[in-house]
Amino acid sequence: MSNSSDFDRVRVVLVATRNPLNIGAAARAMSNFGFFRLYLVNPFEPSFLEARSAVGAAELLANAKVFATVGEAVADCSLVVGTTAVGRRELRHPLKFLEEGARAIHKRLHSRTSSTGENKSEVAILFGSEKFGLSNEDLSHCNWLLRIPTRDEHRSMNLGQAVAICLYELARNAKRAASVDKANPATAGDIDRVADLLLDALQLAGSLDSRSAVTTGQKLRRLMRRHNLTAEDAKFWLGMFGQITYKLRQGKRPSE
Amino acid sequence: MSNSSDFDRVRVVLVATRNPLNIGAAARAMSNFGFFRLYLVNPFEPSFLEARSAVGAAELLANAKVFATVGEAVADCSLVVGTTAVGRRELRHPLKFLEEGARAIHKRLHSRTSSTGENKSEVAILFGSEKFGLSNEDLSHCNWLLRIPTRDEHRSMNLGQAVAICLYELARNAKRAASVDKANPATAGDIDRVADLLLDALQLAGSLDSRSAVTTGQKLRRLMRRHNLTAEDAKFWLGMFGQITYKLRQGKRPSE
Repeated sequence: MSNSSDFDRVRVVLVATRNPLNIGAAARAMSNFGFFRLYLVNPFEPSFLEARSAVGAAELLANAKVFATVGEAVADCSLVVGTTAVGRRELRHPLKFLEEGARAIHKRLHSRTSSTGENKSEVAILFGSEKFGLSNEDLSHCNWLLRIPTRDEHRSMNLGQAVAICLYELARNAKRAASVDKANPATAGDIDRVADLLLDALQLAGSLDSRSAVTTGQKLRRLMRRHNLTAEDAKFWLGMFGQITYKLRQGKRPSE
Repeated sequence: MSNSSDFDRVRVVLVATRNPLNIGAAARAMSNFGFFRLYLVNPFEPSFLEARSAVGAAELLANAKVFATVGEAVADCSLVVGTTAVGRRELRHPLKFLEEGARAIHKRLHSRTSSTGENKSEVAILFGSEKFGLSNEDLSHCNWLLRIPTRDEHRSMNLGQAVAICLYELARNAKRAASVDKANPATAGDIDRVADLLLDALQLAGSLDSRSAVTTGQKLRRLMRRHNLTAEDAKFWLGMFGQITYKLRQGKRPSE
């Protein structure tokens, strides 16, 4: 389930941050959205101390962990995501835009990783320095990269704002994921059964020749997948189409 | 259509901002997400001048308009939205969380308001001062209020971050709205016709008594609305269910 306790396994890693106000702003946004694990890699020592004045996030800052290298900061993580303002073609890493990236992070936080079904995945989200972003050395620790969809003409965001938007999207996604979790999404098999039954009905109604059956079937499956059916929805449709198909079969039998 | 030119009719209004860095940060986020109209109500004069150094947003700041009162800054707007960190029960205004609010703003930007179908709605989004937020006088100009869904234990956001998140959500929504626009959403009438036809089919299949017809009909409509059908989807379903219903009617006739 997606809830704030999942965020206990997400660390925000600020790498080589220069401006103390940005550390403070990042900490405040973390507190606003329920993320409490701040890791600092190689910060300017004085700036880190100044940042302790961040509104409402003093405790979070006091508990921040400081590391000399990215490698040490993410050693126990199974997913390391680097943020970037750079476009796809300049990168050697897979790039995901924020919405897709946030979904991927949630997926990792919720997948069952151990035999007991308990999830222990630790996730790190890296933010580079104000001036240079993440270095190639930093990027070498990342599984993939995340980009906030800013205008191509002005991609580079303020660090504190970038952190805030990423955490907002993760928190937004968590609510959504929780409601889908609760709603129990239909499986691919459920959707196939609904589509098959409907195709049967169309065939029985005589409105499907063997040529159109394939394309109609594809269209139907595509459409059903796009509708985000829950398992309950699928059951409802199956019931309905089952009754209709049954009736069509009955009607057909005498004439055969 | 939702695209960046819609944002030409959205103004970001900063009211009584104290910290020059926040004006700069707001301007930068505006430029990142394609909003170029910055209005300042009663700013600290010196801070406003300092802010002109905002990274990548110098022109935007140079073009900012300065007003003495909120009334003057929003005089020509048909929708004025105030941002707040305050909970519902303390407010006299309707409150929308950001996702819902962004949708409502888009709706206003796209609704046809003149006889020529051209939309001239001007929209203002107000952000209050760092310390006090929007005053009751400021709020009196607002149609409704917008809240970013932060934790109840730490609601109040940094001003620059709040602006960034609101504009991110509006830009995100614009892309989504554009793809739905392109897809041409089904009308309520379309959905009703699909549901009616399917109910007919169920009735013809003999699996619907008059008691269950009402609740099944309601459930069907609810489900179909949740599926976000496009007009094309509706046509596809209508075609399919039409053929099935036709066949069921044929099958029924002899036995009647």
